[in-house]
Amino acid sequence: MSTADKPYVIGLDLGGTNSVFGIVDARGEIKATTAIKTKAYPKVEEFVDAAANALEPIIDAVGGIETIKGMGIGAPNGNYYTGNIESAPNLVWKGPVPLAKLFQEKLNIPVGITNDANAAAIGEMTYGVARGMKDFVMITLGTGVGSGIVVNGQLVYGSDGFAGELGHAIIDRSPEARQCGCGRKGCLETYCSATGIVRTAQEMLLKDSRPSKLRDLNPEEITGLDVSVAARDGDAIALEVLKYTGTLLGKACANFALFSSPEAFIFFGGPTRSGELLMEHVRKAYDEDILNIFKGHAKILLSGLSGSDAAVLGASALGWEL
Amino acid sequence: MSTADKPYVIGLDLGGTNSVFGIVDARGEIKATTAIKTKAYPKVEEFVDAAANALEPIIDAVGGIETIKGMGIGAPNGNYYTGNIESAPNLVWKGPVPLAKLFQEKLNIPVGITNDANAAAIGEMTYGVARGMKDFVMITLGTGVGSGIVVNGQLVYGSDGFAGELGHAIIDRSPEARQCGCGRKGCLETYCSATGIVRTAQEMLLKDSRPSKLRDLNPEEITGLDVSVAARDGDAIALEVLKYTGTLLGKACANFALFSSPEAFIFFGGPTRSGELLMEHVRKAYDEDILNIFKGHAKILLSGLSGSDAAVLGASALGWEL
Repeated sequence: MSTADKPYVIGLDLGGTNSVFGIVDARGEIKATTAIKTKAYPKVEEFVDAAANALEPIIDAVGGIETIKGMGIGAPNGNYYTGNIESAPNLVWKGPVPLAKLFQEKLNIPVGITNDANAAAIGEMTYGVARGMKDFVMITLGTGVGSGIVVNGQLVYGSDGFAGELGHAIIDRSPEARQCGCGRKGCLETYCSATGIVRTAQEMLLKDSRPSKLRDLNPEEITGLDVSVAARDGDAIALEVLKYTGTLLGKACANFALFSSPEAFIFFGGPTRSGELLMEHVRKAYDEDILNIFKGHAKILLSGLSGSDAAVLGASALGWEL
Repeated sequence: MSTADKPYVIGLDLGGTNSVFGIVDARGEIKATTAIKTKAYPKVEEFVDAAANALEPIIDAVGGIETIKGMGIGAPNGNYYTGNIESAPNLVWKGPVPLAKLFQEKLNIPVGITNDANAAAIGEMTYGVARGMKDFVMITLGTGVGSGIVVNGQLVYGSDGFAGELGHAIIDRSPEARQCGCGRKGCLETYCSATGIVRTAQEMLLKDSRPSKLRDLNPEEITGLDVSVAARDGDAIALEVLKYTGTLLGKACANFALFSSPEAFIFFGGPTRSGELLMEHVRKAYDEDILNIFKGHAKILLSGLSGSDAAVLGASALGWEL
């Protein structure tokens, strides 16, 4: 059976709480989806059994397993080289989990795994705004800041499969730098993740006495979405938070550009809901900071994949490359 | 005639003052060399004519042009994609100079060009300590700090041929950060190039009142070599300069590792003459600063190419890839 007869791939967006599966065609159209609770299966083998059961009807609906070219998994600490999830703190399964191998044996199709940000990069290259690009950097803004880097049309996995951890670039070496969950201080993600944005908002509300709708909320309960919504309503402090965040992101990207001189930086994730209110500051700081020879070379873009499906699409895209 | 019958490549190390040519075999043995004065030829066509005349006898000595697989050029601002030297401030030729094309037409062999640091990386991969490595970062310490990055066994040229400018990573964003020749402040090379090391020595001699042999010199005339020599003699201030330099290099490399998770960082250039007096601090700062998941993965190495021939060897290595 030739590749032309296998028009679909399966994508699995594996999170600590939910696992969402989608069957996707070459244009990035999701033909069918299903989901199971990741947390409900303390043993990974039971998880794979439950997944196979959930997948069976939707695989049958598109014409059976013979129509599936492969399966891609986006998972925290997913390692492309080993096929394992390497000890992810948010998952119930401990130690390295050979998830690609388990699915491959269960479904009898090629299965690949990588982390969420790498999956997003492959998704963007396959179905999104990076189609046709050979050199770009994907930046995912969520609980942390992730990155997926494409050089010469290939994802950069590095010597060990862990390459592309730009969220942990240290951008502040002063004693006041923010503490990061990685144990170090001043990492980009402590400032520019959704969590970092909330922290900035909390700090600014203390330092800046201007009125703000964010003051109506319990400071401990402010979310990234609250900041986005307030900023859209013209809230001065929320706008200032986005300016601070965007400026730091732009400066960080200007340093990243020195590495691979990408055609584009592509941003994905919750905080990008703020759109130009955030991105204008990314662009401005990038343009001010970028080395002369790179000036005007890289575009600063928003993801072309729609929010709720993006993670499944990204994971599925890996299925074409196996 | 098959590749096996073409056992040699030509390397050209093109500097502002001298241009050194070597004919090199697959083991990295230099069979013959010649040189001309770059500055003596205000027109690039005259330079290429003079080079061809200088090369003729040494090409004949190895069996004629039929034995040459290709020619690689390492030159400031050499662009692999265009084959041009793009406006190099230290050269007499202005504007983009199509040097690869001119040599190709003159010698009738494939000719490629890249910048010095990229040539060093290819040289290291072909003949040096990076043989067999697929992911590493070359750091060249000279008047500036250059870098050549290899990912998946390929040099990273980026979207425009200019990738790998890690010497311009901004490592200090404080108001006191050093001014860089690129117009920005706080670039790595203002601290860790040979020039930066001299600047650090001058500053430390003012701030630190301990005795030092470097005080016998006119502060304006201190060189990187003076610092190396003093450090080997146990000079406290010179040792402190190397500690400061090595620590900054190690921290910077810990940030660079986030990008491509290399197997090794390989250092080349004048300041590496200080050997372990410098490198122990690079390793220490790197180990302290590196993100947990990368701990112990990358080696910190010195170049395997001998100093005076290294640039020609590096350039020649590009000749095998054309």
